[in-house]
Amino acid sequence: MAKLTSRAEDYSKWYNELVVKADLAENSGVRGCMIIKPYGYAIWEKMRDEMDKKFKETGHENAYFPIFIPKSLFEAEEKNAEGFAKECAVVTHYRLKTDPNDPKKLIVDPEAKLEEELIVRPTSEAIIWNTYKNWVQSYRDLPILINQWANVVRWEMRTRLFLRTAEFLWQEGHTAHATKTEAIEETEKMLEVYADFAENFMAIPVIRGIKTPSERFAGADETYCIEALMQDGKALQAGTSHFLGQNFGKAFDVKFTNKEGKIEHAWGTSWGTSTRLIGALIMTHSDDLGLVLPPSLAPIQVVIVPIFKGDEQLQQVNEVAFEIQRKLKEKGISVKYDNRTENKPGWKFAEYELKGVPIRIAIGARDLENQTVEIARRDNLTKETQPLENIEVYIENLLKTIQEDIYKKALNYREEHITEVNSYEEFKKVLEEKGGFISAHWDGTDEEEEQIKNETKATIRCIPLENTFEDGISLISKKPSKQRVIFAKAY
Amino acid sequence: MAKLTSRAEDYSKWYNELVVKADLAENSGVRGCMIIKPYGYAIWEKMRDEMDKKFKETGHENAYFPIFIPKSLFEAEEKNAEGFAKECAVVTHYRLKTDPNDPKKLIVDPEAKLEEELIVRPTSEAIIWNTYKNWVQSYRDLPILINQWANVVRWEMRTRLFLRTAEFLWQEGHTAHATKTEAIEETEKMLEVYADFAENFMAIPVIRGIKTPSERFAGADETYCIEALMQDGKALQAGTSHFLGQNFGKAFDVKFTNKEGKIEHAWGTSWGTSTRLIGALIMTHSDDLGLVLPPSLAPIQVVIVPIFKGDEQLQQVNEVAFEIQRKLKEKGISVKYDNRTENKPGWKFAEYELKGVPIRIAIGARDLENQTVEIARRDNLTKETQPLENIEVYIENLLKTIQEDIYKKALNYREEHITEVNSYEEFKKVLEEKGGFISAHWDGTDEEEEQIKNETKATIRCIPLENTFEDGISLISKKPSKQRVIFAKAY
Repeated sequence: MAKLTSRAEDYSKWYNELVVKADLAENSGVRGCMIIKPYGYAIWEKMRDEMDKKFKETGHENAYFPIFIPKSLFEAEEKNAEGFAKECAVVTHYRLKTDPNDPKKLIVDPEAKLEEELIVRPTSEAIIWNTYKNWVQSYRDLPILINQWANVVRWEMRTRLFLRTAEFLWQEGHTAHATKTEAIEETEKMLEVYADFAENFMAIPVIRGIKTPSERFAGADETYCIEALMQDGKALQAGTSHFLGQNFGKAFDVKFTNKEGKIEHAWGTSWGTSTRLIGALIMTHSDDLGLVLPPSLAPIQVVIVPIFKGDEQLQQVNEVAFEIQRKLKEKGISVKYDNRTENKPGWKFAEYELKGVPIRIAIGARDLENQTVEIARRDNLTKETQPLENIEVYIENLLKTIQEDIYKKALNYREEHITEVNSYEEFKKVLEEKGGFISAHWDGTDEEEEQIKNETKATIRCIPLENTFEDGISLISKKPSKQRVIFAKAY
Repeated sequence: MAKLTSRAEDYSKWYNELVVKADLAENSGVRGCMIIKPYGYAIWEKMRDEMDKKFKETGHENAYFPIFIPKSLFEAEEKNAEGFAKECAVVTHYRLKTDPNDPKKLIVDPEAKLEEELIVRPTSEAIIWNTYKNWVQSYRDLPILINQWANVVRWEMRTRLFLRTAEFLWQEGHTAHATKTEAIEETEKMLEVYADFAENFMAIPVIRGIKTPSERFAGADETYCIEALMQDGKALQAGTSHFLGQNFGKAFDVKFTNKEGKIEHAWGTSWGTSTRLIGALIMTHSDDLGLVLPPSLAPIQVVIVPIFKGDEQLQQVNEVAFEIQRKLKEKGISVKYDNRTENKPGWKFAEYELKGVPIRIAIGARDLENQTVEIARRDNLTKETQPLENIEVYIENLLKTIQEDIYKKALNYREEHITEVNSYEEFKKVLEEKGGFISAHWDGTDEEEEQIKNETKATIRCIPLENTFEDGISLISKKPSKQRVIFAKAY
């Protein structure tokens, strides 16, 4: 197995190689679309199941809406339409026919042109709010709390596996409410669901914040986000929750009679996370040997590798290994025993390191003698010998420790890479030399934000929700400012 | 609540009304595409989870492939292409722009025309086999056992909720094997997984069989199917499993070196079930009052309705009801306590009958006194009074009984509606007067099959796998035949 390019050598190349070598995903024959391979999909399934549980616990139900949006609906909410029009796949025909010049080829049948073009959904507000119109008459019909797991298409010009693909998998929550207050509460609640999921399940620390107007979702009055920091010092938006005001309520005429008997437009939210999170997962924890997966979402949590000479020894190891496997499975731990004879232990060690299996148990002749096993942690690469007795309890606790340690490590990195700066000079120097999140004062205008972006490629990631207020002076216009915002270069 | 149209009055209308009134699905603003509402989607989730478990138990993994198929890949397997070309959605452009004549409208940007058109997948053999090409070199890389949960699009002209929609949700298994024998074994294994799922989970009895050449999947060498019978005497294909031979292996050049060192093309299978099964579920079990759901896939298995006068009585009932709810939940039974005061018990009874909740528990003043509850079964509409003590055990067993009884009832109906006939006259008479499956001899030609179809609308549903052989004479050509096949009108 050829070694991975190291992060120091070429971070971007390291990422691309790792995604492919660890069997997570690959590019397809369709421009910008990826194939999510079984190992990558198994991680996504764990993420999906955990998020789905959280959505249901907070009162949401799943439903499914059409993949196509007729152009007339797509254009109804102007800002939303404008935001997505430049990157959408358009269905114009509904039939192919045999090419009259070559009976082995097919051509689009010009007689099968649609009366109205259909947009492959880049996001589903339009089709969903057009439906809600028929579901809502009275305040008693509200709130509507619906989530959808689906594929969406955005015709991105420059794509990268997981991080930016023309088609991706995601979930999109779409809720309708009787009051502004309730809709804002929902927006904030779902942001917290995302933050909790990112931190406690994916072990990715995030900053909760609000986007500036220029970075808002097209059609939203306010976009909340969680921002994560990758190991190369670039930020990655890990989830967004939008307060839509009455924009879609008005555009799609979703009206209801309120408690006072007056007719009002419904208030909306939408919120989403996608397979992009797998990119964040990789770039937050992994190292030059391969993936590092937090135990909570590792498809294989423990691998057992036998070290043996000859069949007799293998059989003795088998006995011990199967017993460990049985005990771990009883505890709900996913464990693989790899006693294939085609590959040497060293090859297997490298393979499971590449795949990010959190714990490796090796059992050799001396272990049999001493009633021990060798335990190796993937996250910090330490090894230790442990007694065989009650090993399942030890492993169970170790998985918890690893989950916590991975989070702490990422959090330490993140904390070390939030730098407060008080001048534009300092800003540029830190951005250049250290990267990471830069906390600085901003004058609140699009102009200053734009100029900084043009000159440095850094954008305002968010105005943190847990900001402390202080007097300061903005980077370029030197206008007074009451709080710092978070800048970074971003994926 | 307006009553449902009865089945006797208008079966088709009954079905359409039921789907909408029971909140399963509705038509969308997009031609032929449906909205699966939360209650319908909750049923689909249960079906999906159960099937997914079975697929994994039989060694399959999930993955995800692009929704788009470039035209050149789509046309590579000729029969498959021919079979789906007439009903596929085609993406030709990747951008909209503002209409120069009306700044509020969007038009397709003629400058954003794709070099090669993309087909929205009607099925994924083409894109998947094009991928397998890169995954397979040696027999050691086989078998590939992959399943995908996805949406697909087939541009059907006449659509009906669940039964036939332009977009539907499904799973599609795609496997590649080193030998013909192994591929046929896989095809048959997955048919049995489907049959087991239909019968033991959905309580739908099915006939396992093989399609005639004219009804085969486009691109398959053999199509296996399970066929169910609806209450109006029409058949519904509930799942198919295809032996693809080397057709896709050759079309996409998926080659491997076999154990003997020779290069061969891989053998394939594909198999699928879809949201169409929800249509089968409805039409197999439901009645004029609404849905009848087998407990295994009822989103709510038990509903508790209080019968009370005044707050004090309600509080007393609440106490008992919450305790029952707690005990049932402990047993993993999904239970809803509906103590809303806006609606009368009679309204609630009708509502949960419509929704197909298998068991209703009513608790009134007399029950409080006698330490009893009233239990009503949705499937056979019987009621009985049971002691409160150990009620959770009684309910747990009753759910099992209901599951079995629903299956038996459907099986009885099916058995009563398989009629053996020995002449075309008899065939037409039975088809007209009784419907159902008709078991008859066929001469094995497309011509006879076609003539019967044209004259009676009945098609050969399958050649049953568990056929006994007997000498007979075919319906029209009067040629000798060795076995009966199953005819029916079908959805």
